[in-house]
Formats: sequence, structure tokens, C-alpha cells
Amino acid sequence: MSPLLVDIHTHLYPPSYISLLSSRTSVPYIHASPARSGSEQAPPPRLIILPSDDSESLPPAQRGRPIDASYSSISEKLAFMRHHHISSSVVSLANPWLDFLPPSTAAQTAREINDDMHALCAAHPGKLYLFGTLPLSAPLPAIVAEIHRLETLTLCKGIILGTTGLGAGLDDPALDPVYKAAESTGTLLFIHPHYGLPGEVFGPRAHESGHVLPLALGFPLETTIAFTRMHLAGIFDRFPALKILLAHAGGAVPFLAGRIDSCEKHERTGAQGTRTSIFEVLRRNVWVDGVVYHKVGVEAAVGVVGRGRVLWGSDHPFFPPTGEREGKGEEHGGKEEGEGKGGEEKQWLSVTLNVDAVMEAFGDDREGAAGVLGGNAVELFGLDVMEG
Amino acid sequence: MSPLLVDIHTHLYPPSYISLLSSRTSVPYIHASPARSGSEQAPPPRLIILPSDDSESLPPAQRGRPIDASYSSISEKLAFMRHHHISSSVVSLANPWLDFLPPSTAAQTAREINDDMHALCAAHPGKLYLFGTLPLSAPLPAIVAEIHRLETLTLCKGIILGTTGLGAGLDDPALDPVYKAAESTGTLLFIHPHYGLPGEVFGPRAHESGHVLPLALGFPLETTIAFTRMHLAGIFDRFPALKILLAHAGGAVPFLAGRIDSCEKHERTGAQGTRTSIFEVLRRNVWVDGVVYHKVGVEAAVGVVGRGRVLWGSDHPFFPPTGEREGKGEEHGGKEEGEGKGGEEKQWLSVTLNVDAVMEAFGDDREGAAGVLGGNAVELFGLDVMEG
Repeated sequence: MSPLLVDIHTHLYPPSYISLLSSRTSVPYIHASPARSGSEQAPPPRLIILPSDDSESLPPAQRGRPIDASYSSISEKLAFMRHHHISSSVVSLANPWLDFLPPSTAAQTAREINDDMHALCAAHPGKLYLFGTLPLSAPLPAIVAEIHRLETLTLCKGIILGTTGLGAGLDDPALDPVYKAAESTGTLLFIHPHYGLPGEVFGPRAHESGHVLPLALGFPLETTIAFTRMHLAGIFDRFPALKILLAHAGGAVPFLAGRIDSCEKHERTGAQGTRTSIFEVLRRNVWVDGVVYHKVGVEAAVGVVGRGRVLWGSDHPFFPPTGEREGKGEEHGGKEEGEGKGGEEKQWLSVTLNVDAVMEAFGDDREGAAGVLGGNAVELFGLDVMEG
Repeated sequence: MSPLLVDIHTHLYPPSYISLLSSRTSVPYIHASPARSGSEQAPPPRLIILPSDDSESLPPAQRGRPIDASYSSISEKLAFMRHHHISSSVVSLANPWLDFLPPSTAAQTAREINDDMHALCAAHPGKLYLFGTLPLSAPLPAIVAEIHRLETLTLCKGIILGTTGLGAGLDDPALDPVYKAAESTGTLLFIHPHYGLPGEVFGPRAHESGHVLPLALGFPLETTIAFTRMHLAGIFDRFPALKILLAHAGGAVPFLAGRIDSCEKHERTGAQGTRTSIFEVLRRNVWVDGVVYHKVGVEAAVGVVGRGRVLWGSDHPFFPPTGEREGKGEEHGGKEEGEGKGGEEKQWLSVTLNVDAVMEAFGDDREGAAGVLGGNAVELFGLDVMEG
């Protein structure tokens, strides 16, 4: 029997959020191209959430990514889960969340979207849970109020958060009330990248490899920098019970923790202070997802946060199959039959890579693998998981 | 008996290079502060090699780092080696190398400095070898000529190289003659960071933690980006026998290789091409040093390049002891006696962290640890190592 699979990194744009993006004409927005002639079908609308995707040098059909029902449909989410034997999912609004809202409407929009997400999850007991979203452009008391309100939503298991905070990063002392509220309510903060790195670091030929550089490096390096800044700013000393979940297995934090620790110990300006060591923070305050696509990453993540603190994720609906490149789909769980749309299709490569990574990292240690694939999430979030 | 220790990441500014930096007044330069009054001793000169170290907002005594004889003295290098039981060192000019030279004099200066380094090493047979340096601001034929000339220097084991190339990065097609010459001569290119990341990514409070963010993150992330750009540009397809050594255990490449590979496989713009997979490149073209300060990093590095391709390094003379923070010095090799200046002192923390990381990563596998600590370098470089 395959171990229980729980997906804690899986995104959903509820219909109200799709409408919001479709009404906009600057990043983030959804761009619906008209058909080129009367006889042709219109191309699918495209989701443009990264400034680098909006370059005038790209033809419209290459800006962003095509957007289909997998981004907003609960039935597509459930079909994806069935097809990949995922028992439960903790869904979150994807980047860029609500960071772009005008301050005057942000709090109200956040409440509506969080309530929408909660209602969608509540219709499928035991299958769906959520991470809420904060109205970061709203006045600070409204942000804190939404943390306390989200605590009362029974299916809400934490809050997803970008790296800009109030505009000056997650090491901004002005965020202390947010961290205090998260700590006092026991709310897990899921730190997720969106803004990447300044384009010039990828050089003048970055576009030749499509989205690879900003997605493969910009995203995890953004998370790495954000967490390290939080650590160096002493946030985990001021809020020792704060719980954070780092996306993409911590960016590159597990690999770089030794160097960060050493640089702190070798710092001569007197600025190093007396903060808790990064390795202690990693084992006390940090969980990471397992979205890392290779056993080396899983092993390193387990090595710094511990085997009980790595939680499996798919990053669905991003990284869908591209077609001819899929080829490992039958290795985990076999084919499904009679599953409707997904029934005869292979599993997504992005899923099988992340399942295989865990299985290979743990080898004969089936219990360790089962923890990362699902058991750790069930325990951390108190999920009421139903098999099948 | 302790295993043989060979240091392949250890820097030297020969006296001619110190003179060059001392004659300059902009980065990179050496700044000699005058004594504040007639009765006070002048503070030690300071080495300023990072633009971020030259900020007017820093008091002069906090810009850069104090520079002493450990940066330029062969006898200090040899004392450091004896004190830490390092049998042989492959020394390299430290960043920023010769990147800043005027084109008209760069080639001549490079020849002089490479010859100086070679003569210093030749005076200590079996103890010292070198990586050469290229005059990257010189005309391309002069750069290629220096690669061929360095091949004739018997103690030269490769070439150290920053990430800017000719100004547009290491994925610049204009560098193909350089890679062709390196490949045809079997010259290993030691890719080393210097320029870090744009300061804004570290936020407005970066200075509060001194050099930690640019050194702990800027450096390895620069290497990560540079190597990934080389890979995506197909350099290892055009030059399949090219050999590179990545500093600081590959930056974060070992941890991120899975994500890079997955993003390539999921890229939909058609730009992904048919390049060799990053995992094959890592096992075919890449060596990494072991300057990673924790067993998790060593394990990940071994996991992607193989146990025979990780080579130990100290990063001397950077990261000297800060005093009260040293505490693990007696664990590896014990104290030395009668060693002159270093005799009664503890070992450098930066050394013991990197030795312990290897020992802990390999555990009971003494042979694997011995390979990383020295055997791999002896074999790769054909070192004529003398014990003791």
C-alpha cells in the first residue's frame, strides 16, 4: 500500500480572484488575447504575474503562462488529487496574493477571498484545508485583525506570506505586531517567493532559457534571503514560538546554513549580537516543504530541520506536463482507471519527481518517507484525513 | 593518524599585487589610515575589495577588513599550513584578481603576477602549487595566450576566474575561445565569486549584520547563478571536456540542481533546447570545493558531483579567528608545540568547521573522508605531496 500523501503546497485562485486579475491591465493581470481572425479560435487567456513576463520584447503568446480551469476550479483540484492519490490538500492563494491591492479595499477583499476559500474547502470535508492570505497593504491593525479572524476559521491551517512584508522586507521591525499575533495564535506563516531577484543578475541572455532562471533560481534565492534576513534581525529571538514554513524546501537555506552560521561567527564588526543560532532556529521555528525535485534536496532539508518537519507538496497547478517530456508517471501508484478526465493520463512529472525524491532520500526507512509524504502534515495540522 | 590534508581554496596576494592595490584610491584598494595623533600608532591598513565595503556611511575603521602579513607572506602561509597539518596548498590570487586593470597593461601584469606566484611556490617543492589568473580586460588573443603560457608552468594546476568574464557573464559566447583553450589544454577553471548580488536584495538593514549577508549569501548565490547560466547557455555541450571547479561547494548548486532540472523539463517556451542534463554536467564537468562549514553541505555536494570530486579548502586567509569565539580547535589534530607564532594558538574555526564537516558527512567511511580531505586533490592535480 502506498503511504498517505498530503499536499501542503498547492495553489488555487478562487473565481473572485480570477475576476480581480481579469479586471487589471498591469502586473498582475490576466490577458485575454482576441482571436486573430473571424475563423480562428481565440488563444487561451494568459496569466502574467511576474514583471519579467510582461516584457514588450516578448510576443503576447509568450508572456506569462496560459491559464485554464486548473487554476480556479475545485473539481479540477479534486481530480488532480484523485489522479495522484493525494488524500488531503492545504490550498493557498498563489502569488502575488493581495500585495497589490489599494489600502482602502485590501482588508475587505482579503476577508472575502479567505471566506471564499474556506467555503470551497468546507464543501469537501477531510479533503481540503487552506492557508489564509493577509491584506498587507491595509493599515496594520486590519492586518492583525485578519490574523485573529483567520484563527476562527476551522479549516484554516496558517497564512501564506510573500517576502516584501509592508514593503521593506520580512526583517522590518514594523512587522512585529504581525509576528506577535502569529505567535500568540499559534499561526504558521508559509513564506513563499514571488519577486525573485533583479533581472540583471541573470544577464542579457536570460530570456533564451525562458522562465528557467527566474523560476529555478530567483524564487528559491528570494526565500533564502528573506529567511536569513529574518534570522539576522533577531525575529526568532523576539518571537521564539513563531512557526514558519519555508517554500521549496527552504530555498537554499538547508545547504547554506553552515556558511551563514560561520559568517556570523566570523563577523568582526560587533554587529553579530547574541541571537539564537540558525541551526537552533531551523529545528525550533522552521518547517519546510518538500518541493525540491531531488533526493539530495530532501536529505539536506531533513538534515537541518529534522525528519518530522519536512512536508510534501506538489506546487500544483504550476509545472503542468509539457507533453512528450513526461515519462515516469507509472512508477508511483500506477495508472488509475475510470477517473474521468485524468483517468488514462500519466501522472504529472512535477508530482512524481517530488514523490521519488522522498522515497529515494529515505530508502528502506519507510516510516521516515511516510512522515514526509503525509504523516508530518497530519500531525502538525491535526488533519482529519479520510483514505481514498 | 590523521588523513592527508590538501588545501585547494587558499588565497595569496603576492607583494606585487599588494603594491598595485596600495597605489589605488577606488575599489579595489588598500587604505592606510594615518595615526590619529602623534602619540598613537597608526591602525593597520584596510583591504577594501567590495563596493559595499566602501560606503561613506561606514567609519573608515569599519570599511573592508584589516590586512596583515597573512595576505601576502609565504612564511605566514606555510606557518598556517603547519599549524593545521595541511600538507600541500594550491594557492590562488584572491578576488578581485585582475578584473580592474586597464586593457593595455593587463596582459603584462598578469604574466608578472603569475610568474611571481609560480616562483614563490617553486621555492617550496611539494608544499605549494598555484592557480593562475587571466588578464580578462586584455584583448581576447592575449587572454588565450596566457592560458597556453600557464600550461607550461609546471606548478600551475588551473586558473581562477570570476563570474563577469569579459563583462557580460560566463555565458557570453565571446568567451568561447577561452573555453576552447581551457578544454584543449585540460586546464581546470576555478569559478569564484566576488561581485555578490545587488545591494537592494539584502534590504535597508543589511549593514546591521556587518558582512554576513553579502558574504554568506551574495557570494554563493553569485556562483550558483553563474554556473546555471553557463549550463543553460550550452557551454558544456559545446565544450564537453571542459573542467570547472566551483567555489564554496558550488554555491547552492547541489541543493538546487533538482529544481533547475525540473524547471528545464517544464519550460514551455521551446527555449529549453537539447542540452546535456545538469546532473550529467555535474558528474562530468564539475568539481567543487568543500568550503561549506557543515556536513549537510558536504553530503549534498557529494550527492551531485560524486565523492571523488569534492576537494577540501580553507579559504585562508579570510575568516581568521575573532578571538573568544574559537572553541573547537583541539578536536582535529590537537595542539602543536614549538611552531613559532602559531604554536600555542588554537586552530582556526574556519578550518576545523570544514574538516569536521567532512568527517561527520562520511562517518565511518574513512576512505571517503580521506579522499575529500586530500586524496582527491592529489589524484586530480598529480600532486607530489610530502608528508609532514
